Amino acid sequence: MLENIFENVRKKHPLVHCITNYVTVNDCANILLAAGASPIMADDIGEVREITAICNALVINIGTLNARTITSMMAAGKEAVRLGHPVVLDPVGAGASALRTDTAFKLMDEIQFTVIRGNISEIKTIAKGSGTTKGVDADVSDAVTETNLSEAVRFVKEVSRQKRSVIAVTGAIDIVADDEKAYIIRNGHPMMSKITGTGCMLSAITSAYCAANPEDTIRAAAASVAAMGICGEIAFRNTAQLEGGTGMFRTMLIDAMSGLDSEAFLKGEKIEIM
Amino acid sequence: MLENIFENVRKKHPLVHCITNYVTVNDCANILLAAGASPIMADDIGEVREITAICNALVINIGTLNARTITSMMAAGKEAVRLGHPVVLDPVGAGASALRTDTAFKLMDEIQFTVIRGNISEIKTIAKGSGTTKGVDADVSDAVTETNLSEAVRFVKEVSRQKRSVIAVTGAIDIVADDEKAYIIRNGHPMMSKITGTGCMLSAITSAYCAANPEDTIRAAAASVAAMGICGEIAFRNTAQLEGGTGMFRTMLIDAMSGLDSEAFLKGEKIEIM
Amino acid sequence: MLENIFENVRKKHPLVHCITNYVTVNDCANILLAAGASPIMADDIGEVREITAICNALVINIGTLNARTITSMMAAGKEAVRLGHPVVLDPVGAGASALRTDTAFKLMDEIQFTVIRGNISEIKTIAKGSGTTKGVDADVSDAVTETNLSEAVRFVKEVSRQKRSVIAVTGAIDIVADDEKAYIIRNGHPMMSKITGTGCMLSAITSAYCAANPEDTIRAAAASVAAMGICGEIAFRNTAQLEGGTGMFRTMLIDAMSGLDSEAFLKGEKIEIM
Repeated sequence: MLENIFENVRKKHPLVHCITNYVTVNDCANILLAAGASPIMADDIGEVREITAICNALVINIGTLNARTITSMMAAGKEAVRLGHPVVLDPVGAGASALRTDTAFKLMDEIQFTVIRGNISEIKTIAKGSGTTKGVDADVSDAVTETNLSEAVRFVKEVSRQKRSVIAVTGAIDIVADDEKAYIIRNGHPMMSKITGTGCMLSAITSAYCAANPEDTIRAAAASVAAMGICGEIAFRNTAQLEGGTGMFRTMLIDAMSGLDSEAFLKGEKIEIM
Repeated sequence: MLENIFENVRKKHPLVHCITNYVTVNDCANILLAAGASPIMADDIGEVREITAICNALVINIGTLNARTITSMMAAGKEAVRLGHPVVLDPVGAGASALRTDTAFKLMDEIQFTVIRGNISEIKTIAKGSGTTKGVDADVSDAVTETNLSEAVRFVKEVSRQKRSVIAVTGAIDIVADDEKAYIIRNGHPMMSKITGTGCMLSAITSAYCAANPEDTIRAAAASVAAMGICGEIAFRNTAQLEGGTGMFRTMLIDAMSGLDSEAFLKGEKIEIM
Repeated sequence: MLENIFENVRKKHPLVHCITNYVTVNDCANILLAAGASPIMADDIGEVREITAICNALVINIGTLNARTITSMMAAGKEAVRLGHPVVLDPVGAGASALRTDTAFKLMDEIQFTVIRGNISEIKTIAKGSGTTKGVDADVSDAVTETNLSEAVRFVKEVSRQKRSVIAVTGAIDIVADDEKAYIIRNGHPMMSKITGTGCMLSAITSAYCAANPEDTIRAAAASVAAMGICGEIAFRNTAQLEGGTGMFRTMLIDAMSGLDSEAFLKGEKIEIM
């Protein structure tokens, strides 16, 4: 399923405004291009509203946030919402510092995000009212596993209800949910956690998928998660064949995205609805 | 022609001060090294004049400009001009926001650029007196093609006259012109537009080429454009042979630059004077 | 020797707070992951103390310093020292501008660094009381060679005594010394200087090595220098075999680090004590 969602990105070439961290920004730009979208990075308050206005989507990634860029994130996010553009939040490191947690909360207070994507610790942090968590929550065990999956799905649906956003929790098993429905995605490879940026790249392409499928946000988010996971699997196979390491894997991941077509997507996706 | 221009870069190892965007900064540093030059990135107002003074050239790229770095661009640019260093402007996204367009104009007002390099939309934007364009100009069609080539050449020469800079417009067909002469360069490959940074990298090496050939700016700019295009062709062939994608192409592009010699340059260049 | 030092990094997975330049930040993150550590990049004054507190080590790299990040470097460094974390300084470009030299001195005045790693020009600059040097010092010839090695070792030991830090000088021959003992490391390959970031990456992993070996700083620093050098050799061999250039070499360097095991480390290391 979802291959039409995948195809729409390549057909429509959405332009994505990225306010993102300087660690993985090049990978975000290249994966967007590989996915059939186009990136624009701009973070000065003097231009973010205007840049967002000429784009089709916005992704806000707080990975290397600072006082200056937080102001820009807020302004761009509000403008994108006003224009009806999809806006994705990647709350990188929420829970690791009060600044990150508080910023995530402030952004969520002021901006109605289309999708919030993070790892389970980040999503647990943003699910709580307090900005002082450290990324661990006793109520739901940390990693999503086959054993705690239905509990995790209930939790993610509840977060979605609370935030009125599609929530994407990625890890060994990925969950993409709104308040009613959850897509469980079993694509991906552990090597994806051995390079920096797979989460950031996914958030970037999720915004592109939403832009190309505006009426179908949850399916767009699920398709982007599956696409990234499939590319991780392909990249792992190709890297292993050449006895490469994590440097090659990073290159192969972008290669896989640039070469992915509907047929490979359809054949590779391991998506289940719960 | 121009192989002596190419060789001078490898012989003289110019040191290039880059005030550039954080998206492609690593690629700019690595392509400068691959071309035989050395990069220094520095953007704090407290040091840019001093850093420029120990370098042989300066490139100003407004790709992720902000209020702080604009001040540094201005100060560094003025100092470089005062010292007689070549200064290249890459007006990334001029036309996409008033901040970018206005900054490009302010920089051009205060700094006599040696070369201005951009795509056709950016060059059209900076050719107009107004800072409110959106990168599209009805007077000259957007892409340079064989059909509108002579019209485009006239336009680029006119921009050069207006700005008193060599103008390099890159795309499917590249034009490098001063007010009298134009070099038409038919090197390159469409895959170059499927990764981020080929324009930024080209602007960086253009400044190195100008530094190594101070008496011969237009030929230096034309040679750098041809060199980048030849590397794009080589990278495409090598990527295709290994059935790689855009990730591998990016790697192969820097590989091609690091391996390019005079013979390959001379054999590969498709430069015509008009 | 030192293979237990190497193994401890893979066993303990230290978390490293990096305040580093935006040119090579992605490489630093990926090499840390490849070495078995984890990176966190954070440079806002509103969070650097907190981020440092949850990490096991801090690396401060002044490669693209600015007024804002200098304040954060100072605050994070003091907090890391207070907590007993290893702190590594990479004084990139000290000597190239007064801002860089003065900042290096201010940081050294306020923060007791565990290790200071730089090239010989940077280390010479920080060894002098003045902040106005240009990176060249007539007292010790610039490059460390077999001929001037014992003189260079004496100099590095003297700097260590002065700064009460382990000093790592890297180049064709590497010297890692405290005031009594020096490790001479003859690993590495000239191609490492043809890409950007090998020094920055080394400083990052040095902090991880120190975090995983808190009682053994000089041996940790020596092991990280050897590990990086061995990876440079492996990367060169693998690149040459595929007739690759500097782009491929960069990828292969991270591959080599991700694949390095104790056996290869032990077999490859060329460490001598002087």
